[in-house]
Amino acid sequence: MYTQEELKEIVNKAILNISYEDEETDLYNPVKYIMSLGGKRLRPVMALMSCNLFRDNIDEAILPAVGLEFFHNFTLVHDDIMDNADVRRGSATVHSKWNSNQAILSGDVMVFVANECINHVSPQSLPTVLNIYNRVASDVCLGQQLDMDFEKILYVSNKQYLRMVELKTAVLIAGALKIGAVIGGAGEKERELLYSIGRNLGLAFQVQDDLLDAYGDPKLFGKKIGGDILANKKTFLLVKAFEVASVEQKNRLRQLITDEDIDHDLKIEEVMNIYNACMVDEYAENLAASLIREADVLLDQLNVVQTRKEPLRNLAAHLTGRTS
Amino acid sequence: MYTQEELKEIVNKAILNISYEDEETDLYNPVKYIMSLGGKRLRPVMALMSCNLFRDNIDEAILPAVGLEFFHNFTLVHDDIMDNADVRRGSATVHSKWNSNQAILSGDVMVFVANECINHVSPQSLPTVLNIYNRVASDVCLGQQLDMDFEKILYVSNKQYLRMVELKTAVLIAGALKIGAVIGGAGEKERELLYSIGRNLGLAFQVQDDLLDAYGDPKLFGKKIGGDILANKKTFLLVKAFEVASVEQKNRLRQLITDEDIDHDLKIEEVMNIYNACMVDEYAENLAASLIREADVLLDQLNVVQTRKEPLRNLAAHLTGRTS
Repeated sequence: MYTQEELKEIVNKAILNISYEDEETDLYNPVKYIMSLGGKRLRPVMALMSCNLFRDNIDEAILPAVGLEFFHNFTLVHDDIMDNADVRRGSATVHSKWNSNQAILSGDVMVFVANECINHVSPQSLPTVLNIYNRVASDVCLGQQLDMDFEKILYVSNKQYLRMVELKTAVLIAGALKIGAVIGGAGEKERELLYSIGRNLGLAFQVQDDLLDAYGDPKLFGKKIGGDILANKKTFLLVKAFEVASVEQKNRLRQLITDEDIDHDLKIEEVMNIYNACMVDEYAENLAASLIREADVLLDQLNVVQTRKEPLRNLAAHLTGRTS
Repeated sequence: MYTQEELKEIVNKAILNISYEDEETDLYNPVKYIMSLGGKRLRPVMALMSCNLFRDNIDEAILPAVGLEFFHNFTLVHDDIMDNADVRRGSATVHSKWNSNQAILSGDVMVFVANECINHVSPQSLPTVLNIYNRVASDVCLGQQLDMDFEKILYVSNKQYLRMVELKTAVLIAGALKIGAVIGGAGEKERELLYSIGRNLGLAFQVQDDLLDAYGDPKLFGKKIGGDILANKKTFLLVKAFEVASVEQKNRLRQLITDEDIDHDLKIEEVMNIYNACMVDEYAENLAASLIREADVLLDQLNVVQTRKEPLRNLAAHLTGRTS
């Protein structure tokens, strides 16, 4: 059985082994760049962990898992253009290092690298894996659409927020676990359980991400603290604040969001004051913890020797309390 | 056996039958829009024609063929952003009708619609079809990269031009014929012959396209005449002009390309004068004709009853002399 660290190592090695036919153009340079910035490799690691629940030899899952990481990084490259974000994992985003056109095109080609990796599955699993992957991929696009749409409106309900996060973040993590399970040879019931586990962990992961944007350590976080606040992102913190704040706080929050001329630091400071007064960080921590508990209960139900579940259980436990 | 018109009808019906889960967002509106602008549906029609060479029932090829059309339109949506083009098929481009972010995201989701369609192939053909498709798709991205890179340099050789066109345009048409052949049950030799036929037709198609940009009828062409000239696109006409023009004409051409302040109409007029003097249109017509003749010779070699080749032969014959 592999630990999270060992799997990350396997994923990183496989990423370095991918070859590109670039004919001396810039096409794949942004691809190599974004893939070299590291990150947790959460999605491929989880796919491999899921496969490893059911079999010792996980070789067949490595390239498909890496495909999910390419897909994920493709979405980052394009989302960063749309969000006008300059920094990612502590480094310049692709479109700010090159330009938007290069980021569009190099992002595009990453999808086909992802496709190619995912196709390296045995013919009998291929149709199922592709079905899951394509469904997940279009869901992620729809999630990004909702995220963009939400920036233009003042108020988003808790339900709308959770739907957006489900699509934008959770389904890919759910899909990673399900794809790993399919390749591992799991039955239908186990596949669906792992999808649900991934959905819960994905939601928890995003709530935690929202928390880090406001409460994280700038050195460890790799992005500017308060970026979501400046972009009027409908994070869990903002959604919750609008739910629990006093009338005065809500009015001020509304003003802060709609005031386009306000000083950036002042905006972050004032919003944070309201967040602190409303203790939205506690709500977020509680929600993340309860989602992870739920995932744990589902993991108990999985028809696999308990000891095999340890790596996934550890990963779940570490999703809260993370710093980057 | 189906005619080109019948196949186009089949493709258009299948496109209308695709359903989208949009959750009341704008995500799929640009997709429906660009797909409704029509066009020749050349790639899916050719895939179906190729399949129809080998079998009467082409049902299995319809969705994969439609997938190629979605892929092609995805590239148009993104290329139009990169090229800053306002008009496509006589209508507003997606990014000018919506905005760049919407065009990026709706373009992205089209890839997964394409993937989904292409996956509707029998399990025994699936790995082969996916291999061809992914290879073609990344080649097309590389072709667009070369096209963009060429805009920044003054001089491109005939060889560089042909390589760019091969990647950007010809491989997709070649791939369409090859995928149709695989689904039709063709053997390896026939598949490769059809790929080569498609490559020739694709090159001819692009040379013709270059011609239309300068010599087309604006009403039928659907784009602004001279758009390539203004964008300093390295078309066959420009490449050839640099090859055959007099020293004075070359110098003037160089000035026209590098002068960023020149009046647009004047630039088009002066470049056209040089094109006319060099008779680059005749060179282009001759090249297109010889590529199509070569495709015809390859088609002769195909081990299929001659009458079955008629639709493809007619299509090839009509690639030159087209007006849009």
